[in-house]
Amino acid sequence: MNFNYAERMSNLKASEIREILKVTQRLEVISFAGGLPAPELFPIDEIKEVNRIVLEEDGESVLQYTTTEGYNPLREWCADRMNKRLGTNFEYDHILITHGSQQALDLSGKVFLNKGDIVLCESPTYLAAISAFKAYECNFIEVPTDDDGMIISELEDLLKTTENVKMIYVIPEFQNPTGRTWSIARRKAIAELASKYNVIVLEDNPYGELRFEGKTLPSIKSFDNSGQVLCMGTFSKIFCPGYRIGWIAGHKELIQKYILVKQCTDLQCNTIAQRDIAKYLELYDIDKHIEKIREVYRERCDLAFNTMEREFPKEVKFKKPQGGLFMWIELPNKINARDVLEKCLERNVAFVPGGSFFPNGGHENTFRINFSNMPNERIVEGIKCIGEVLKEYI
Amino acid sequence: MNFNYAERMSNLKASEIREILKVTQRLEVISFAGGLPAPELFPIDEIKEVNRIVLEEDGESVLQYTTTEGYNPLREWCADRMNKRLGTNFEYDHILITHGSQQALDLSGKVFLNKGDIVLCESPTYLAAISAFKAYECNFIEVPTDDDGMIISELEDLLKTTENVKMIYVIPEFQNPTGRTWSIARRKAIAELASKYNVIVLEDNPYGELRFEGKTLPSIKSFDNSGQVLCMGTFSKIFCPGYRIGWIAGHKELIQKYILVKQCTDLQCNTIAQRDIAKYLELYDIDKHIEKIREVYRERCDLAFNTMEREFPKEVKFKKPQGGLFMWIELPNKINARDVLEKCLERNVAFVPGGSFFPNGGHENTFRINFSNMPNERIVEGIKCIGEVLKEYI
Repeated sequence: MNFNYAERMSNLKASEIREILKVTQRLEVISFAGGLPAPELFPIDEIKEVNRIVLEEDGESVLQYTTTEGYNPLREWCADRMNKRLGTNFEYDHILITHGSQQALDLSGKVFLNKGDIVLCESPTYLAAISAFKAYECNFIEVPTDDDGMIISELEDLLKTTENVKMIYVIPEFQNPTGRTWSIARRKAIAELASKYNVIVLEDNPYGELRFEGKTLPSIKSFDNSGQVLCMGTFSKIFCPGYRIGWIAGHKELIQKYILVKQCTDLQCNTIAQRDIAKYLELYDIDKHIEKIREVYRERCDLAFNTMEREFPKEVKFKKPQGGLFMWIELPNKINARDVLEKCLERNVAFVPGGSFFPNGGHENTFRINFSNMPNERIVEGIKCIGEVLKEYI
Repeated sequence: MNFNYAERMSNLKASEIREILKVTQRLEVISFAGGLPAPELFPIDEIKEVNRIVLEEDGESVLQYTTTEGYNPLREWCADRMNKRLGTNFEYDHILITHGSQQALDLSGKVFLNKGDIVLCESPTYLAAISAFKAYECNFIEVPTDDDGMIISELEDLLKTTENVKMIYVIPEFQNPTGRTWSIARRKAIAELASKYNVIVLEDNPYGELRFEGKTLPSIKSFDNSGQVLCMGTFSKIFCPGYRIGWIAGHKELIQKYILVKQCTDLQCNTIAQRDIAKYLELYDIDKHIEKIREVYRERCDLAFNTMEREFPKEVKFKKPQGGLFMWIELPNKINARDVLEKCLERNVAFVPGGSFFPNGGHENTFRINFSNMPNERIVEGIKCIGEVLKEYI
């Protein structure tokens, strides 16, 4: 067939994770691959109840078209939540409800990126952000990153010397894939650079509520005086991902542009989903629910970490994250994690090789472990298995 | 503030319809503006029931992430439905479930359009398709169109003489905004031109199920031998729009590209929405439900048309559509429908001026009437009011 695609299509390839996820749908597979929440924690009965109530109370509007901006009580909740936790100062009209965080990434590309523009990102960074932005034909420069976040001097050097930097994309809490958390000093510093160099910072924060230890840190946005920082949130990890409801928050002028772009992209988010979630937040205690998730993930994280310490060869490097869903593993340079994965898949254990998280390639000696989706005994069994395969290589 | 947007942003402006819809949220306004279904026909009790059942039967997967392609039983239903009604030959994997039809438009832009590419469309055409494609910085050429669809000789002349035509966008059934339906001969002819000139035809069909008279016609896709025709569908007009579930169907190679692009745009559609709708289709008789909608809209269409015949000055031209949601009105050349709208809004009656439906402007003497959303007595009252305002102008 002779189809005539847009040029951008040559930049896009299927997400490695979603391809691996197809394998992991087999029940016998122990999967550390996806970023899937633990489904046994979904508040199924409560959701049944809120859906019944919203349909009974207001079925005709709940099933109808609604505004692009999103349901106002939900926008208000998002603003309040960020203000309370993250030191921001939002009102409901600083918020656009999006079809999951992923759509906020896509809309950000649409609002800001011309072909050939530069996106600066952590090295490594979230794989699906890379593909969202790539659709707008940008290029990436990976900013050297350590345990405290991007190295600020390196970031400033890049901002000074690089043309057409449009956006800096960061995940300062329990980063995907590394699990790292930015220091307060670095958060403050990047907000200052955003203002100085007139460049957008997109602060992604899907895991921030899932902190296992220590105190919540102020967001990058809380240090923003110029309006150049936008921040994102999602119900996928604290409620459930099936609803596809997230949000983006920022300066009103920017959010107006996002609304315009969302309007021509998909008109609006699912009305029912927005109303169900708003009703849940009204009737139930989401903090209690999140505490339950946090407990379970903390235990799984500890268990995975302790098992790795016991079972992985000592040449393998990893650290325990303060929260979130992921751990990051570095193998000796000569070992390719894709080979390790192949051997593990033969034994029904899956994870994601780290190479895909580097937009400019390399780093094939790394991989990512998700610890939220498997019960305890399978975590131990799966990590042991990876350990055995690693011992064959080292 | 000094924000640095992408160039495409200068092409986008807020949809006039959605701005007018904000006005029409006031209960006293008689609105012929949106394309809103009649909410009193939504199957609220049945939806409550199917949501309860899917959460009880399979809550953990219903609330979890799922595949980008969509829920297979739902994809299968879409394929079967099109095959039965429209003479196509689809299987489930020719279908991608989308976040409403609007997302299928957006993804089409992403898959096919480079900056400066040409989209051919009916004159006039669906306003939100114009804005969806404009985000990809294409240009539009309006193809002269009569009561039977695009004039084929004019279309072929354009295909012969224009470079970079990537897509022909058409709504062959009860077109938005004109209410017109393409003849079978024209459907066949455009499919042949698509093959001859190697250009994509995007066949949008949101209203096809809402036929008030005559027989269902074969789709353009049913005449397609080259794979160049893609067709779209939606649950918004036959079920309810709040779910934001639609689909696009076509050659497997094309659908693979759409899946790739949807993956980086928003990962997947709402899992719960897909499961609710699939369960409804399994447990209830959607044909019976659609028949009910059809009856009500037929009556409202007749009523609006008859009232217009009685109340509008004889210089005003309009025709009765065979189905759908819309009627198209042409005023004498010198009259600007935006002025008429202003006067009508003062009297709490709204419609959409026709100018916005022409991507290259002009035709300010036209407007669109939606007849599906208002009860009978308000239809009569509203049309009378427009008639009175028109008499002041003519």
